[in-house]
Amino acid sequence: MTVQPPKSAWYPTWLREVLDNIAPLDSKLQKKVQARLNNLTKPVKSLGRLEKVARQYAVIRGQERPKLQKKVVYTFAADHGVTDEGVSAYPKEVTAQMVYNFLRGGAAVNVLARHVGAEVQVVDIGVDHDFGQVEGLIHKKVLRGTSNLAKGPAMTRQESLTAMEEGCGLAQQAATEGVDLLGTGDMGIGNTTPSSAIAAVMTGKQVASVTGRGTGLNAKGLEHKIQVIQQAIQLNQPDPRDPVGVLAKVGGLEIAAIVGFLLGAAARQVPVVVDGFISTAGALIAARLHPPIRNYIFISHLSAEKGHRAMCAALGLKPLLDLDLRLGEGTGACLGISLVEAGVKVLNEMATFDEAKVSQKER
Amino acid sequence: MTVQPPKSAWYPTWLREVLDNIAPLDSKLQKKVQARLNNLTKPVKSLGRLEKVARQYAVIRGQERPKLQKKVVYTFAADHGVTDEGVSAYPKEVTAQMVYNFLRGGAAVNVLARHVGAEVQVVDIGVDHDFGQVEGLIHKKVLRGTSNLAKGPAMTRQESLTAMEEGCGLAQQAATEGVDLLGTGDMGIGNTTPSSAIAAVMTGKQVASVTGRGTGLNAKGLEHKIQVIQQAIQLNQPDPRDPVGVLAKVGGLEIAAIVGFLLGAAARQVPVVVDGFISTAGALIAARLHPPIRNYIFISHLSAEKGHRAMCAALGLKPLLDLDLRLGEGTGACLGISLVEAGVKVLNEMATFDEAKVSQKER
Repeated sequence: MTVQPPKSAWYPTWLREVLDNIAPLDSKLQKKVQARLNNLTKPVKSLGRLEKVARQYAVIRGQERPKLQKKVVYTFAADHGVTDEGVSAYPKEVTAQMVYNFLRGGAAVNVLARHVGAEVQVVDIGVDHDFGQVEGLIHKKVLRGTSNLAKGPAMTRQESLTAMEEGCGLAQQAATEGVDLLGTGDMGIGNTTPSSAIAAVMTGKQVASVTGRGTGLNAKGLEHKIQVIQQAIQLNQPDPRDPVGVLAKVGGLEIAAIVGFLLGAAARQVPVVVDGFISTAGALIAARLHPPIRNYIFISHLSAEKGHRAMCAALGLKPLLDLDLRLGEGTGACLGISLVEAGVKVLNEMATFDEAKVSQKER
Repeated sequence: MTVQPPKSAWYPTWLREVLDNIAPLDSKLQKKVQARLNNLTKPVKSLGRLEKVARQYAVIRGQERPKLQKKVVYTFAADHGVTDEGVSAYPKEVTAQMVYNFLRGGAAVNVLARHVGAEVQVVDIGVDHDFGQVEGLIHKKVLRGTSNLAKGPAMTRQESLTAMEEGCGLAQQAATEGVDLLGTGDMGIGNTTPSSAIAAVMTGKQVASVTGRGTGLNAKGLEHKIQVIQQAIQLNQPDPRDPVGVLAKVGGLEIAAIVGFLLGAAARQVPVVVDGFISTAGALIAARLHPPIRNYIFISHLSAEKGHRAMCAALGLKPLLDLDLRLGEGTGACLGISLVEAGVKVLNEMATFDEAKVSQKER
């Protein structure tokens, strides 16, 4: 007997309200922005995707010439019970160690965020470590890591919703504080495992085709990781029609937070630059919950992690960059933020043909 | 009877000296830089091409942790007699009009250069306009535009060498002034025509397979442009074994200046980020003159202009970005500069595993 997955009517009030607030984009404004882009001193559409990105940003913001000043990347950190299965090349302790590295500014995401003029906010959404009152960390711990998804559900449906709600709240708070552009990021030893599980469930592809070496497994380690994910899916039976259930059964706390973050930002008309493999797993869940979310996000880069291409294809979104990155943290999001900003500056700062007294196309 | 192309021994003294000064890269330093990259708090090689770019930059500079502060894009402007054939969608006057736009800071290259913290230097290498003493323009006019290459050679061998020497001198002057990273750019109505001609000659491909719509020709215009280029090659018989001759017969003054610029920068160990279609035509000529030049340059992006992919393949270089840009000016170079800088900052600013007390890989 097949049990029907819960309908969206069963979502908690906060989630229904957020989804209701994600408005369709204004096609009239889109035309207006395109008209301005076409009148700038360059051949029509010669700045390719920069122009498309600028137009999308403007339409999300609801302004013909939107400002883009404050940029913040949120890096969500959490642990994963599935590390018990030996699915990562690094010990689990690295999650907490890297959180300290983020707070001191020594990690890749810090370097790249400084480079593009963005801030990094580090969120403990589920690290298996007591950080005490360490300065700069946003304390939103839901659990000290998920359970081992190879042995049962990673978390309960309620825990998954709580992590989503925390992520959503942070995006909404950022909007209130005047952030113009957000980025996602993740830190969690073992988290390519739940991400690949989500990819397999949501795209319908074979586990082996969406599972990669993560931080650097060898061939044997990769084979074992694939078996662990297959076992987890077999055991937990996640149903793609029930995205919150998928998150709970084979997801992770940082992935759940990213799902809520994307929804909360869209509800407040703040575009989000999605990082790589783990963040895109969140985007897949969010898009299944509410397909229009795809109009509110940019995929920063095509990850070198196997399966990311299939995830982007399932979303129908083309990454901005392809640099063989596979680090996470929000590193790709930082680079993507800089490209979005480049496009918006083109829209706002370039001279028009009239202003510059440049002749128009003649043939 | 086949006439042998001139040998490199016949090059002028300045050019032979420049080529002699382009040193092979230091493989020992390369290993040292890689060792540092591997010891930073991230999985080995997880920052993909950013790491490769950082390593290449460091090795060109000859330093394990090189600074990267001053970045300048040189935009070389020139006119083209072949515009008489109606090969461009825009009138020829736009070259000079855009030079004024550059000097006022209203063009795309200005916006993107400001975005990445680079300076723009605008060089009149052959515009068919008297700029007088306009402030900010670098006056290096060799000719008031080339001759119509569909009717005869675009310029003499000596004119082509003079433009190369001017470009070389500017790169060397920039090195003396402490510029750390250079970018190329171009402005010249009609200049996709000589660039496609160079692409066809240097790659051996059919003209139609390396000729695109430039600033926006329609299908009929494109067909005509292909015929014009075929005619020019038929008439002038450029020989790919004689790159300076190719430049003179079917090239352009800005392309010649870019060739010299790339060589001059390499001789002074300053890496150059090459812009798009026109600049890559220059890189093809430079690489035929002196193949090791390929180790000293980055191709910023894959242009949407047809034929650029074949040019990059002939160079054996993979563009950093693929954003459907086809504007030139140095716009792609600006975005590429920002990626090179991102990589170098990773190399210089990230914490090592020891510094951050992060555990190393265990399996």
